[in-house]
Amino acid sequence: MREQPTLVERLIDEVRSHLLTPPTGDDRVVRFGNPEEIAAAFAETVSLEFRDDEPAHEPGRVVDAARQVIDWSVATTHPRFVNQNFAGADPIGVVGDWLGAALNTTGATYEVAPVFTLMEHAVLDKLARLAGFPTTSDVHHPPPGMFCPGGSVGLLFALQLARHRLDPDVTRRGADGTRYAVFVSEAGHYSTRKSAALLGLGTDAVVPVAVDRDGAMRPEALGPAIDSTVAAGRVPLAVVATAGTTVTAAFDPLPSIADECTARGLWLHVDGAYGGSALFSAGQRERLDGLERADSLVWDLHKMMGMTQQCSVLLVREPEQLDACFAARADYLFQPDKRNGELDAGDRTFQCGRRTDVVKLWLAWKAHGDAGMTARVDHAVALADHVRNRVEASDGRFAFVVRGDFTNTCVLWVPPELRPLRVEALDDSQRARLHALAPAVKARMQDDGTAMVGYQPVDGLNCFRLLFMNPAVTTTDADTLLSLIDRYATEQWSS
Amino acid sequence: MREQPTLVERLIDEVRSHLLTPPTGDDRVVRFGNPEEIAAAFAETVSLEFRDDEPAHEPGRVVDAARQVIDWSVATTHPRFVNQNFAGADPIGVVGDWLGAALNTTGATYEVAPVFTLMEHAVLDKLARLAGFPTTSDVHHPPPGMFCPGGSVGLLFALQLARHRLDPDVTRRGADGTRYAVFVSEAGHYSTRKSAALLGLGTDAVVPVAVDRDGAMRPEALGPAIDSTVAAGRVPLAVVATAGTTVTAAFDPLPSIADECTARGLWLHVDGAYGGSALFSAGQRERLDGLERADSLVWDLHKMMGMTQQCSVLLVREPEQLDACFAARADYLFQPDKRNGELDAGDRTFQCGRRTDVVKLWLAWKAHGDAGMTARVDHAVALADHVRNRVEASDGRFAFVVRGDFTNTCVLWVPPELRPLRVEALDDSQRARLHALAPAVKARMQDDGTAMVGYQPVDGLNCFRLLFMNPAVTTTDADTLLSLIDRYATEQWSS
Repeated sequence: MREQPTLVERLIDEVRSHLLTPPTGDDRVVRFGNPEEIAAAFAETVSLEFRDDEPAHEPGRVVDAARQVIDWSVATTHPRFVNQNFAGADPIGVVGDWLGAALNTTGATYEVAPVFTLMEHAVLDKLARLAGFPTTSDVHHPPPGMFCPGGSVGLLFALQLARHRLDPDVTRRGADGTRYAVFVSEAGHYSTRKSAALLGLGTDAVVPVAVDRDGAMRPEALGPAIDSTVAAGRVPLAVVATAGTTVTAAFDPLPSIADECTARGLWLHVDGAYGGSALFSAGQRERLDGLERADSLVWDLHKMMGMTQQCSVLLVREPEQLDACFAARADYLFQPDKRNGELDAGDRTFQCGRRTDVVKLWLAWKAHGDAGMTARVDHAVALADHVRNRVEASDGRFAFVVRGDFTNTCVLWVPPELRPLRVEALDDSQRARLHALAPAVKARMQDDGTAMVGYQPVDGLNCFRLLFMNPAVTTTDADTLLSLIDRYATEQWSS
Repeated sequence: MREQPTLVERLIDEVRSHLLTPPTGDDRVVRFGNPEEIAAAFAETVSLEFRDDEPAHEPGRVVDAARQVIDWSVATTHPRFVNQNFAGADPIGVVGDWLGAALNTTGATYEVAPVFTLMEHAVLDKLARLAGFPTTSDVHHPPPGMFCPGGSVGLLFALQLARHRLDPDVTRRGADGTRYAVFVSEAGHYSTRKSAALLGLGTDAVVPVAVDRDGAMRPEALGPAIDSTVAAGRVPLAVVATAGTTVTAAFDPLPSIADECTARGLWLHVDGAYGGSALFSAGQRERLDGLERADSLVWDLHKMMGMTQQCSVLLVREPEQLDACFAARADYLFQPDKRNGELDAGDRTFQCGRRTDVVKLWLAWKAHGDAGMTARVDHAVALADHVRNRVEASDGRFAFVVRGDFTNTCVLWVPPELRPLRVEALDDSQRARLHALAPAVKARMQDDGTAMVGYQPVDGLNCFRLLFMNPAVTTTDADTLLSLIDRYATEQWSS
C-alpha cells in the first residue's frame, strides 16, 4: 500500500513542476490583479492575512495556496518579460539555490560552511581574474572580495572601504561625514545617494557628473566637478563609475576616469552591477577596459547571468582591507583557538549570518562552463541588436530615444501623424499625450497578460526600455513585443 | 520510451531526496575535512576551482558534485547540531524558499511582486501585533516594517532611523558622526559596533553598559552611563536593548530601559534577532514586556523559527518614517504614473533588488498555525530545561557557567579531581587546561562526526553553549550530547 504524500512532498511537486514547465509565448506573463482581487482569491484557500488566532490550515488548502502564489505571480522567465534587468532565471541556478536552502547554514564560518567557504574563494578568485584584479588561489589567504545581499549593499561597503583608506581611524573614531564628496554620473544608480545618506555623508555629498546623450559620463566633466567641489571645501572620497547604467546600459569611460582618480589619489569604484557581466564575452569585455585599475567592483550575477535574487559580489583590489575595515573580532563566533579559523569569511564583511549565495553560481558555472556564460551575454546583445535593426527599418513607427549598443534600447512609439518624429518640435499637448502613452500601454499589457515591458522617463518623456537577457527569448518573441507595443499604442492613441 | 531525465531533473532529485530524508542520530553531523581534503575530493568530479578556460562539465559529474556538496556540508538539521542559534530548518519553510527562488523576482515593486508585497504586509502586520506595535491592515498604507537581509543590517537601518528622527536633515546634509553615542549592554551583539562604524559614528560611540551575572543589562547602570557620556559632550542617540543575547540568551529589562529612553527622548531599539520569537509563546512572552514602548525591533525568523537564511524583519513604531528616511524616488523604477505605485516597498528601505524572503515564512505559518509556532519555541525551552536538570543532577560532572532559563545553558565539564568546581579556586595551570578543553573536545566531535556543539569564552574560560531549537531533537538526543561531552572530555583531560 502506497503512503499518501506528505504536505512537504506535495509542495515539492508543485514547485518542481513549475520549474520544469517554463512559460511559453502562449502563456500569460502576468495575471494582473489589484490587492483586493488577489486578497479575494486567497480568501478561498488560506487567506493572505493572519488572524489574531491563526489556525493551522489543512494541507490541501496550503497546496492550493502555493498554486495560487504561482498563478498570481509574474512569470519572470516568460519570453515577453522584458521589464527590468533580470529575467529568465537559469534553472540550474534555481536548483543550486534550492540546494543552498536545503543545507541551510551561514557563510560566516568555515566550521559550519566548509564547502561554501571554499566555493566563495574559488568563485571570487575567478571573477577577480576576469576583472583583472589581483588574485590568490591560496584559500588560506583572504579572497579578493565578498558576497553581498545585492548591489546597493556592495556599493555601501565599497564607499566605507574608501573612507577607511583615507582615514583608517574612521572605524574607531567615526568621521564628520559632511566633509566628503562622492562623484557619480547623472545616470548612475540611486544607491550612491542612499549609501551616502546611510554613511552619514548625506546626499548633498554626491556630486552628479554630466553624461553624454547615451548616458555615459563625459570624461571632460569629471575633473572640473572635482575641482569645484574641492574649492567649495569638500574632501573628494571616491568616484563611482557605472558600467552599464540602469536605463540605457551605458558604460562610463573607465580609462580617463582612472587617470583622474590616480592623479588625485581617489578611490575608484566601478558599479558593474548590471554591465560587469560583459566581462564574460570576448566581444563585449572591452567596454570595461580600465577596470583593472579600479579599487573595487560591484557585480550582480542575478542580473544578466540569470542567478536568482540575490547573487552579488564586491571585488576589491586589496583583500586585506576587508578585515581591517570590517572586523569586530567577536570571540564567541570567531574563536581564536579553533581549527581553520583563518578561513572564516564572516569578519571580513558587515553581515553576521549570511545566506550562501555562492552555491547556485558555482553549480551553474560548472554545468555551463565559460562558454555557456559567454553565450548568455552574447545572446542578449544579439537580441538587442535585432530590435535596433527593426526600429531602424520601421519607417518611423518607432524612434530611438537612446539607441544604445549593449543590451538596452529605449524607444518611443510614434503616432502616424508625427512620423518621422522630431521630439524638439512637439508641442506641450503632444508631449503630454506621448508621455502618458507608455503607462497606458503597459497597463493594457498587464490586463491582457501579453507582455511586461518597462518604461522610463528620459528627458521627461516616457519611453519603452527593451532589454534582453533571457536565453529563451527568440527574435520572433522580440518582433512580437514590438507588434504588441504598436497595437496597444495605436489603439490607445486613437481612443 | 521514457526520456532520459535532464540535468535539472537529476539535480532536483538529489535536493528533494536530501530534504525528505533528514539525518537521524545514526548519521554523521559532519564529515570534517580541511580545505585540502575537500579540494581533493572535488578534484574527482568537477574541481572546486575554476580554470582560466573552464569547460562545461558532463551532467553526470555535475550531479556527483551536487552530491559531494551535500556530503561535505554540515547537517544543520541533525539532532546533535547544537552549534549556534539556528538549527533544524523547517521543511515547509525550505520549500517556501524554493518557491520564492523558482518565481525569481524582487520585492521592490508591486508590479513584479504583487503576491509577495501583500504577503509582506500581512506578515509584518501580524508580527507587529505580536510585538505590541501599532499596525494597519490596510495595504494602501505602509506596513510597520521591512524585511532585511539579516539582523545586522536591520540594526544598521534602525540606528539610521534614530539619527534621522533626531536630525531629519541627516539624509541630505549628512552629519558629524563623532558627536553621537549609542548604548548597548556588554553582552549585546557586535553588530551595534559594526553599524556604528558604517554610519560614521565609529565604535568609540558605542558605550557598553554593565550586565549582571546572566548577561542581562543592569537597569541601574544605564542612567549613569548616559549621564557620563553626555558630560563628555556626546549626544545620546539610541539605546539598543537585547532580547536574547547570543551566548546566554539573556533578556535586558525593557521596562526600566524604556523609562530611561522616554525620560530622555532616546530611540529604543530592541535587538530581538534571537529572542523575539519568545513572543510566539504565552509562557515566554513576558520576557519581552515593555517591548510595546520600543521604537524598533529586529527579529530573525531564521534563528529560532527554523526559516532558512535569511528571514529577518525590522519592525518600527512609525512606518511613515521609513519612506522619509530611505526614499530616493528613482523615477525609472518607482514611476509616479504607474498603477498601485503606492504599494511599492522598495523605496521604504535601502535595498533595491531584494529577495522575497517573506514567502517561506508565510507558507510555513499558514501550515503550522500559531499553535505550531508556539510549539517550536516551547519545545526549545523544554529541552534546555531538561539539560539544566541533568546538569544539576550530575554530581558535579557538569557545572553551570551561566545556567540561563530560556533556550541556552552554558556549562563546563569538570575534571573528577576538581569536583565540585570552584572556579575562583582554580590555579592558572588548571584554568588554562580547562580553557583548552572545549576546543579539543569540539575538534574530536568534528573528526568523529558525532556532534557539533558551540563553545564560547565566558570570563576568559571556554564553556559549552547548549542551545536548542530543532524540533527533531529529543531529550534522549540531549542526554547523548552530554554523554559525548563527558566521554571526549574525560579522554582528553587524562591524555
